[in-house]
Amino acid sequence: MVEALWTVAATAAFVLLTVDVAGFPVGQLPHGEPSCGYNSCPATQPSMLNVHLVPHTHDDVGWLKTVDQYYYGDHNDIQHAGVQYILDSVVEQLLADPSRRFIYVETAFFFRWWRQQNSATQKAVTKLVNEGRLEFVNGGWCMSDEATTHYSAVIDQMTLGLRFLNDTFGACGRPRVAWHIDPFGHAREHASMFAQMGYDGFFFGRLDYQDKARRIRDKDMEMVWRASESLTPPAADLFTGVLPNGYNPPPGFCWDQSCNDPPIRDDPNLDDYNVDAIVKNFIEIANDQAQMYRTNHIIMTMGSDFQYENANLWYKNMDKLIRYVNAQQSQGSKVNVLYSTPSCYLQGLHQANLTWSVKTDDFFPYADGPHDFWTGYFTSRPALKRYERLSNSLLQVCNQLEVLGGPKSRKGPYGEGDSDTLQKAMGVAQHHDAVSGTEKQHVANDYAKRLARGWAHCEVLVSCPSCLLGWEAPRQYCLSLNISVCPTTENSNKFFLTVYNPLSRMVSWPVRLPVNGSAYVVRQPNGQVVDSQVMPVSEVTQKIRGDKGYAINELVFLVQAPSLGFRTFQVSQVSKQPPPLPPQPKTPLSMENQFLRVTFDPDTGLLTSLTNLETKQKIQLTQNFYWYNASDGNSVDSNQPSGAYIFRPNSSSPIIISRKAKTYSVKNSVVQEVQQQFSPWVSQVVRLYWGSRQLELEWTVGPVPVGDNLGKEIITRLDTSINSSGSFYTDSNGRELLERLKDFRPTWDLKQTEPVAGNYYPINSRIYIKDKENQLTVVTDRSQGASSLQDGSLEIMLHRRLLYDDVRGVAEPLSEPGDNNEGLVVRGRLLLALTAPKDAADIHRPLAEALVLQPLLSFQMGELHPNTALEFSGLQASLPPAVHLLTLSQWDQDSVLLRLEHQFQVTESLTNSQPVTISLQKLFSTLEVVGVSEMNLSANQWKDEINRFSWKTSTGEQPLSHGAGDPSPWVITLRPMEIRTFLLQVRPR
Amino acid sequence: MVEALWTVAATAAFVLLTVDVAGFPVGQLPHGEPSCGYNSCPATQPSMLNVHLVPHTHDDVGWLKTVDQYYYGDHNDIQHAGVQYILDSVVEQLLADPSRRFIYVETAFFFRWWRQQNSATQKAVTKLVNEGRLEFVNGGWCMSDEATTHYSAVIDQMTLGLRFLNDTFGACGRPRVAWHIDPFGHAREHASMFAQMGYDGFFFGRLDYQDKARRIRDKDMEMVWRASESLTPPAADLFTGVLPNGYNPPPGFCWDQSCNDPPIRDDPNLDDYNVDAIVKNFIEIANDQAQMYRTNHIIMTMGSDFQYENANLWYKNMDKLIRYVNAQQSQGSKVNVLYSTPSCYLQGLHQANLTWSVKTDDFFPYADGPHDFWTGYFTSRPALKRYERLSNSLLQVCNQLEVLGGPKSRKGPYGEGDSDTLQKAMGVAQHHDAVSGTEKQHVANDYAKRLARGWAHCEVLVSCPSCLLGWEAPRQYCLSLNISVCPTTENSNKFFLTVYNPLSRMVSWPVRLPVNGSAYVVRQPNGQVVDSQVMPVSEVTQKIRGDKGYAINELVFLVQAPSLGFRTFQVSQVSKQPPPLPPQPKTPLSMENQFLRVTFDPDTGLLTSLTNLETKQKIQLTQNFYWYNASDGNSVDSNQPSGAYIFRPNSSSPIIISRKAKTYSVKNSVVQEVQQQFSPWVSQVVRLYWGSRQLELEWTVGPVPVGDNLGKEIITRLDTSINSSGSFYTDSNGRELLERLKDFRPTWDLKQTEPVAGNYYPINSRIYIKDKENQLTVVTDRSQGASSLQDGSLEIMLHRRLLYDDVRGVAEPLSEPGDNNEGLVVRGRLLLALTAPKDAADIHRPLAEALVLQPLLSFQMGELHPNTALEFSGLQASLPPAVHLLTLSQWDQDSVLLRLEHQFQVTESLTNSQPVTISLQKLFSTLEVVGVSEMNLSANQWKDEINRFSWKTSTGEQPLSHGAGDPSPWVITLRPMEIRTFLLQVRPR
Repeated sequence: MVEALWTVAATAAFVLLTVDVAGFPVGQLPHGEPSCGYNSCPATQPSMLNVHLVPHTHDDVGWLKTVDQYYYGDHNDIQHAGVQYILDSVVEQLLADPSRRFIYVETAFFFRWWRQQNSATQKAVTKLVNEGRLEFVNGGWCMSDEATTHYSAVIDQMTLGLRFLNDTFGACGRPRVAWHIDPFGHAREHASMFAQMGYDGFFFGRLDYQDKARRIRDKDMEMVWRASESLTPPAADLFTGVLPNGYNPPPGFCWDQSCNDPPIRDDPNLDDYNVDAIVKNFIEIANDQAQMYRTNHIIMTMGSDFQYENANLWYKNMDKLIRYVNAQQSQGSKVNVLYSTPSCYLQGLHQANLTWSVKTDDFFPYADGPHDFWTGYFTSRPALKRYERLSNSLLQVCNQLEVLGGPKSRKGPYGEGDSDTLQKAMGVAQHHDAVSGTEKQHVANDYAKRLARGWAHCEVLVSCPSCLLGWEAPRQYCLSLNISVCPTTENSNKFFLTVYNPLSRMVSWPVRLPVNGSAYVVRQPNGQVVDSQVMPVSEVTQKIRGDKGYAINELVFLVQAPSLGFRTFQVSQVSKQPPPLPPQPKTPLSMENQFLRVTFDPDTGLLTSLTNLETKQKIQLTQNFYWYNASDGNSVDSNQPSGAYIFRPNSSSPIIISRKAKTYSVKNSVVQEVQQQFSPWVSQVVRLYWGSRQLELEWTVGPVPVGDNLGKEIITRLDTSINSSGSFYTDSNGRELLERLKDFRPTWDLKQTEPVAGNYYPINSRIYIKDKENQLTVVTDRSQGASSLQDGSLEIMLHRRLLYDDVRGVAEPLSEPGDNNEGLVVRGRLLLALTAPKDAADIHRPLAEALVLQPLLSFQMGELHPNTALEFSGLQASLPPAVHLLTLSQWDQDSVLLRLEHQFQVTESLTNSQPVTISLQKLFSTLEVVGVSEMNLSANQWKDEINRFSWKTSTGEQPLSHGAGDPSPWVITLRPMEIRTFLLQVRPR
Repeated sequence: MVEALWTVAATAAFVLLTVDVAGFPVGQLPHGEPSCGYNSCPATQPSMLNVHLVPHTHDDVGWLKTVDQYYYGDHNDIQHAGVQYILDSVVEQLLADPSRRFIYVETAFFFRWWRQQNSATQKAVTKLVNEGRLEFVNGGWCMSDEATTHYSAVIDQMTLGLRFLNDTFGACGRPRVAWHIDPFGHAREHASMFAQMGYDGFFFGRLDYQDKARRIRDKDMEMVWRASESLTPPAADLFTGVLPNGYNPPPGFCWDQSCNDPPIRDDPNLDDYNVDAIVKNFIEIANDQAQMYRTNHIIMTMGSDFQYENANLWYKNMDKLIRYVNAQQSQGSKVNVLYSTPSCYLQGLHQANLTWSVKTDDFFPYADGPHDFWTGYFTSRPALKRYERLSNSLLQVCNQLEVLGGPKSRKGPYGEGDSDTLQKAMGVAQHHDAVSGTEKQHVANDYAKRLARGWAHCEVLVSCPSCLLGWEAPRQYCLSLNISVCPTTENSNKFFLTVYNPLSRMVSWPVRLPVNGSAYVVRQPNGQVVDSQVMPVSEVTQKIRGDKGYAINELVFLVQAPSLGFRTFQVSQVSKQPPPLPPQPKTPLSMENQFLRVTFDPDTGLLTSLTNLETKQKIQLTQNFYWYNASDGNSVDSNQPSGAYIFRPNSSSPIIISRKAKTYSVKNSVVQEVQQQFSPWVSQVVRLYWGSRQLELEWTVGPVPVGDNLGKEIITRLDTSINSSGSFYTDSNGRELLERLKDFRPTWDLKQTEPVAGNYYPINSRIYIKDKENQLTVVTDRSQGASSLQDGSLEIMLHRRLLYDDVRGVAEPLSEPGDNNEGLVVRGRLLLALTAPKDAADIHRPLAEALVLQPLLSFQMGELHPNTALEFSGLQASLPPAVHLLTLSQWDQDSVLLRLEHQFQVTESLTNSQPVTISLQKLFSTLEVVGVSEMNLSANQWKDEINRFSWKTSTGEQPLSHGAGDPSPWVITLRPMEIRTFLLQVRPR
């Protein structure tokens, strides 16, 4: 049903594809300027203060209720909110008066609503859109979180939403403005993406209260954000405005049904006539606000969370406001109020032709008070954050295999599969109350359920290698390998493991399978035996998996899989072998492989040093676990407790969990491990695979005990001999890195009021510290909060369990129940690399890439047909190390969407920070590329039709040249940090 | 502005007047059946259970917010409610789908809304009304209270609302059904009035829980109410139905924005699809409900308080409900759901042609639980209740003088006056949270303010005798004579007093004027001196008037004023007289005049006996004040406290305030008084005027002290030697009397759970007890709660001050602040008459009539023009004692509305309970009646066009004859308790 509608919509309304000179379809908008967009803006008064009233609703794609509960208006006892009614009501009110405007933001909701409308309503709405009366802003599937999202998933969710708008409304459905009014801090990479998606401007509501005060003082509320150090301006320049009242109306002017402000009472026959007082108050507020901004245009956001369910209340009163305030003009008033939209406001700013300041850092962390740092959510719900990240990986695999498998992949022998379900679930999960961890528990469960449903649909589709290659046996997946659960491998003496690698180069990957045998033979397709070892399942793992699995051992081996392809391994038990040795209850002095040596303190069981054997670098390194005692709100300075959003330790000194670890060690031909037990609820495996350049720290935390009535925020801390001088580096949405300085903000004179929480930053993929010689980079498997509070020290928050709500609306303490309501156990991995600073990116870029797009393992039992192909690569050849294949997905019947990314920053690698040239024609092994057309990053506009506003900046005019052009339409050059998006017309070779 | 619109509407849309054979305009509806009303009812299924969904809103004309706050949706922090939006929204939703229906009830709100609409909206709404899609039910200005309203004011407010509907919409605007879903008990007189207003049926929501249980058990939820003992059936027969769920939807089916029931989620693509469960539940509920009723039609009220502000929520879900439930018919379901209205439901019942039970008593008192008797509001806010009653009197005066004064009365030399403002204020004040006393304090203040504004407008108009008779000096009114405040009389040596008498016969009335002189001469127009006396202002009165006035004395004299006319008295101070004697500090053994003797106990100061000197009847009579200790909710049986609605003493024994009174006595040629002081906050004057047949008890209560943290409900109790045998009699809305028996209900086997509160009944004008020889009748000046808990005893609750809210929504304890927030002081009068039972009505009917329509006093200073007329009567002659001139008001330019009432019941008077014949042509002294046409009671239908449903009753078919007809159209006969309503075409003689 979903599928069908989606396809119909795409076929019927997709307007981009026409035929270019080279015979390939490229986009072309209808001739003439559309009546929507900037051409539909209401007239303003050049000699007056123009007050742009922007009627809007902010519809969280899940928060206190699930996205579908919000859509329907179910469970209004939790929160009164029903998006179906909002759209019903707004459309009705817009139709009633052509001067009225409305903006809509979240396509996840609009999509649900649209497909329930009859054709008369769809036609009426299309007219509203075409006339600019209903304008889409932002337009992604959701309004993504900026701290905890990965750029890959953000681009996908924006593409999903914007494509629906494009398919449904054509050019008039394309948003001109990015609109992140609620996210709790703003990432530079988001701004960079928005710029590359063609947005003319960006507005948001939340920023540090000190920052805002400074900007109001300096009339610096609007600026140009230069959002990349690598891309040539203005490629990543984004005009950015801070809204005056968050995203609310000015005090006293909220006329939603959820508000209690007085309506305009203009009937002199009734009591309480208040027009004169309202008009006076409004004009005062407008003039006050104009003092904070630079032009004779100001914006007022007339709406808030889930408002406009009964739009009549808003419009009826705003109609009166406009009429009565503007009537004062005949008495000499210089205030002109009008219905408007963010893009029309932006146009007013643009026409002012001023020179704007340039912002180059980001808006993290966000504090709305001296003791109210929103740095807890960087870590909140770590299991959901990991599941979301894993789901992104699966979605890419799913997309790729849909392309490689062709139409057969969707309707294969195992049923109908689709990538659409997971795509939408991932779109929902990017919401700023989803992966952020700031939703209610039942809503977090719903996000997970949606992802799981998406997995199930993808699992059918990713059976495609089978159907592609004539392999008929059903394929099985094991989603709980991290706790050694996999019924297939536990119960079979013989099975096939297929490893699909979504990267554009060969990958090496350690596989750990729960088994009950004592020895196995693992064979490659060519018959070669892969070295494998059987180790007992650790006690910690046995405990946390509970009765979900019964394997006594783990079979461990390294696999390699070809680029964009798979390799199948045959695993057979070797009968009657003695059981593996149990781990040795002692701490080794050291572990080492070809590349690394780590040493331990045999008394404490803790790490003591890390050495890079290739470069002979050595640092002292100790690592341990601590917890911050979460404020319960009963403190002298503030009654703010720690909660889902806010991190507020009640002391700057974290409490150590144990000075010593109980240790066990294992060493075999595949891996060496030191298993450290710090407490019944904190353990770690320090792990070094043969052939690996990184040290793995696999942490297991939980159930966090709270019987002592103390909320706990658990960190891992690495203390090194690196002289980091108060500086550390964190990624922005998994891409470019920003330097952070302790107790410092680049754009204002920080008064630090929270020495720990005020120095926390989000990390999505990595953090590092360095000095001249050494750089220690930590690559993570999910988004987390992290900091460096002492020179040489790095800390990463892993898990949080709290007893109080932090009074930002979610109205629940963050205390995830886990199994049997004992509290959630979370397991994750940190990968450590020690390098010289100049070489670091060459290690951490591919490392993070492989952790984000990890191989998909699937299993089959039984015998294979003799002709079965056991290995496949979708590429003619691996791509160069600098190139990341970000997106490969089916667009429509004959075309696929391809994104290629240069994954290095401009100066970070001697070898890889160079332009790279790729031939699109020679890319795929099984597909012939017969047409190519470049698009903007969000794939809703042809590249050559992008025509963004240009802004004068205080740094002077920027060159527009991107350097030399591409060698040809088929052979393209990627420069550092560039992502290029292509629509390819393909046919099977 | 109001005037203009009103007049325009009346002129444009008034359709009743055409010319009859005698050359006089009478009404005639347009030819052919209208498409509205019963002809517009949706089809039902004869072989199925038809579920009539009745979308409705219940819009209190003031309660927690003022009527205008409700209209606008102001102060939504108190309660979310905005009627302007409700009507906006409903109209929009009705226009969207012709199958949808809505009913609207309160014309006070509809009128406000209508005049703010543009002509396009008015036209669209008219179409909805003409097609029966928007149906008015009830249609009065408000939904009146039934316990504390006087029939005179109820008829007026119904006439006001229904006339607006008639004028605006013609025949399709005329409601067919009376609809009192919320009032807290139901008066028989209301049913009688509704019958006489032409309603076909009546529905309500609240009745005693035991009564309801019995009716459900016996399938007796619907009946014929025979609402008069005097009127010949079916004149006062009213089909009456008890609604199944109060006025709410069945549990789980409330889809208003104020509800949290799950919406119908019918998109299989989204989570939580619930259509099957909803349909199953609904069909079960419908079948269960059908078990309580007798036909294959049932009604469901789909709405509640101030619902439908966002009607889309309701209709969208009901549309789905109807679609999905009726879809089950193809699977064999026998449930047919439809949008309907009360009249369409009623039509279904009527077509069933069953025989219905007959109800002859009323629905008081109302209890919603064993300890939850809604008998407190009979007395709540006694000052407001009195002000409302006084305002009714003024309004009648205002109406009469508008007729008698002609057009000049509206625009006289003192400005523009109107009766309309007071008419509307009185219309609002009849609401079941207005005069009932169950509103918040600020709303009570607003009702009083509206009445005061109405007074001010009327005061201009009632200066008409002046303008009529060429009298130019400004006229002044004194509204605080009851506390001896009147600046004019306090500060003048000489002034004129004009007494206007609204009754249709001469009145005698005691006048008490605050003065500062010691002796005065009072002269009638003919120069005769009227006996007058000066008495000191009592200490009690001085205390409660505070600094509002400074008179030291009161000038007391009896005046007489002609029927429907005035008489002017000249009052001149006689210089240099000694001050009047102070009252004597002792109790006299007795007081007596020509007609009565009362005796006192000299030790206690209390009454001991009352003797009728004409009939030689004597009863023992003691009287004292007590208070019930109001339950604070912390009791064993129930946690119900006393509050604005509910009376719940925590003991059945009231606490005596004092066994002895401190007394003072006065005796002079005009009056004898014993002033009794019981406590600092309770006092009384026992007063006997010369020539009076009634004993006056003027009580003063307050500020009620609550420093002891005990809420108090103050009663006066009369204990007599009358052998009343558990029986007492109370009036219904000031008209017919009902017998009450202690601990008994006529229609079910009462389980009495509150021995005091469960025996309280409302009295509006009188209560009496009797035995074979003696009847003691107490006529009151306002509505109160009363009972007889012991034989020979009568108790009347006077005032209440409470500390707790009684949890019925008002959310305030009833504790009126009074001056300086010390607690309200209230003063009132009881008039006692001792007669033989057979003669009682001859005394109490005119007594109550004169207390309801009391003379209006006005004052002028300066000299009169020598030709000034000092006396006037609007009637050619007084009307017979049985006839009450209920209404005389200007209808339009050439016609006036006249209501004549037979004010005796069929058997209560030997002389007066006889038919009376009146000549309309010979009625007025200054107006010639040139046309007459009779109307229904509410003046919205010609009498000869009334065609009510007839119902078969269990008492058999009733004769339709009303006895002999009128002698001629101009000479009409009134039978006991008949009210006849005429539109008279008049011109000045």
